[in-house]
Amino acid sequence: MYIERICIVGLGLIGGSFGLALRLAQRTAIPRFPLHITVVETDPKTRKLASRVADIVTADFAAGVQQADLVVLATPVRTIIRLLEILPQARPAGCMVLDLGSSKAEICATMEMLPPQFAAIGGHPMCGREVAGFGAATPDLFLNSTFILCPTNRTSDRLQKIALQLVDHLRAAPLHLQATLHDDMVAVVSHLPYLISATLMQNAADMAEDRLWPISSTGFQDTSRVSGTDPLMMLDILLTNKQAVLQQIAAYQERLTAVSHLIRDKNENALFQWLQSTQEEYFAYQAAKSTPQQ
Amino acid sequence: MYIERICIVGLGLIGGSFGLALRLAQRTAIPRFPLHITVVETDPKTRKLASRVADIVTADFAAGVQQADLVVLATPVRTIIRLLEILPQARPAGCMVLDLGSSKAEICATMEMLPPQFAAIGGHPMCGREVAGFGAATPDLFLNSTFILCPTNRTSDRLQKIALQLVDHLRAAPLHLQATLHDDMVAVVSHLPYLISATLMQNAADMAEDRLWPISSTGFQDTSRVSGTDPLMMLDILLTNKQAVLQQIAAYQERLTAVSHLIRDKNENALFQWLQSTQEEYFAYQAAKSTPQQ
Repeated sequence: MYIERICIVGLGLIGGSFGLALRLAQRTAIPRFPLHITVVETDPKTRKLASRVADIVTADFAAGVQQADLVVLATPVRTIIRLLEILPQARPAGCMVLDLGSSKAEICATMEMLPPQFAAIGGHPMCGREVAGFGAATPDLFLNSTFILCPTNRTSDRLQKIALQLVDHLRAAPLHLQATLHDDMVAVVSHLPYLISATLMQNAADMAEDRLWPISSTGFQDTSRVSGTDPLMMLDILLTNKQAVLQQIAAYQERLTAVSHLIRDKNENALFQWLQSTQEEYFAYQAAKSTPQQ
Repeated sequence: MYIERICIVGLGLIGGSFGLALRLAQRTAIPRFPLHITVVETDPKTRKLASRVADIVTADFAAGVQQADLVVLATPVRTIIRLLEILPQARPAGCMVLDLGSSKAEICATMEMLPPQFAAIGGHPMCGREVAGFGAATPDLFLNSTFILCPTNRTSDRLQKIALQLVDHLRAAPLHLQATLHDDMVAVVSHLPYLISATLMQNAADMAEDRLWPISSTGFQDTSRVSGTDPLMMLDILLTNKQAVLQQIAAYQERLTAVSHLIRDKNENALFQWLQSTQEEYFAYQAAKSTPQQ
């Protein structure tokens, strides 16, 4: 590895899996590479479990980042922004920073206000589960997934190289995107899917009928799965990607209204075309997903 | 078995799986029971494959139902209704009828207009896949799923008993529901989930961006899965369960608008409560699903 001392801030599903994946890479790489991980974690219970990942565990951000070559911020998005704001006081000498937050424009804008002794790059691993916390962390969470990197005007060539090496250790595929384009795209494939799944769950839970769950099938199960996502994480995502999310909801509502009118009017031909084109788009998506990416 | 001669009309995913499951039950039951299956199928290619299920294969409905003790209608819903309407001419002596359609009120109303020499009951196996056709049929499709039975004023005690025995052979769990309640409930857990998943797929497919699918993750994959459902089947479902579906879309849109306002207004407390209650409802649903049913 180009660097040795990493500080992971936030040992949840993503930060924990990141640490476990690096430990796995360290054990299996030839030649082996030195790796020293400090974990900053505010939850006492999680701190007790951190030894699978950490050489040093602390609750104190300033102490944790003190000797790190690279600080990896893996908390909810608005905490990442607050930590970026206090980082110059906590570590006046500067260091490198990568974050793993799910929205990128506000984070990257904050990174660009760091003093010149800092190098920073935005990161977003496109994987996740409807379970949260270090207990759900697994070293293969990133395997074969896309890891988005959002360079900023604080991204040095060295940090760029290190970020690509880390993504390689996670066995993910890197993809460079501009932060605002990233946010528009994840609004479409991640934040809107969460909201429509959550609204579906709220809608079904409102029907007071004991026999509703026994008759629900795999269709409901899959469509509602991401409604179980960690609310603290989602809160920050929705508030920091507000414009793109609202735009997607509005476009979505228009489409849903349009198809409801086809049903209302029993417009059989147009409704069938809508259903058929949907299935075609689903098949095209499946085909694209099964084609290996660069 | 209480009956020997069954005619399955429509050898798609559901009708084909129904036939394969009965054949499996026949092979494994002690003592073995006699079973004669006639398949009515209009597609020549499927007819060629039907010997895994059928003793006799025909394209002609009237010929197929001629000697059946029980006719099982497994076509799209509006075809089921049309077949029920011509059944008295096709089989003047009468017989028993079960259907496997996904909406029930219109079908059961049509069953109730059959002459008295017919006995009829509505059925809806709560299982499915986003693939259609006999090629996707499997004898374990119904395993551990709920099989809804909707009695009509044409349901005899004998047919009731036979229907329960068939559900047992499918290794599914029977649940009796009144047809209109069934339709309200499946609008919530099946038809609305399809529509929101399909609208999501249409919305994402509209973004002309090559990198959209590589960054989509398991969340999008699961939420969009049922958008691949057979359009011909969905057309009939949506048109025959119009009122309940429109009512659910309206309720859903109100909820989605409400949460979009929480995001727009950055109403952090109320938004967090909404996200948290959603996760709680998801956990409650998961717990209910994993509790064995009666």
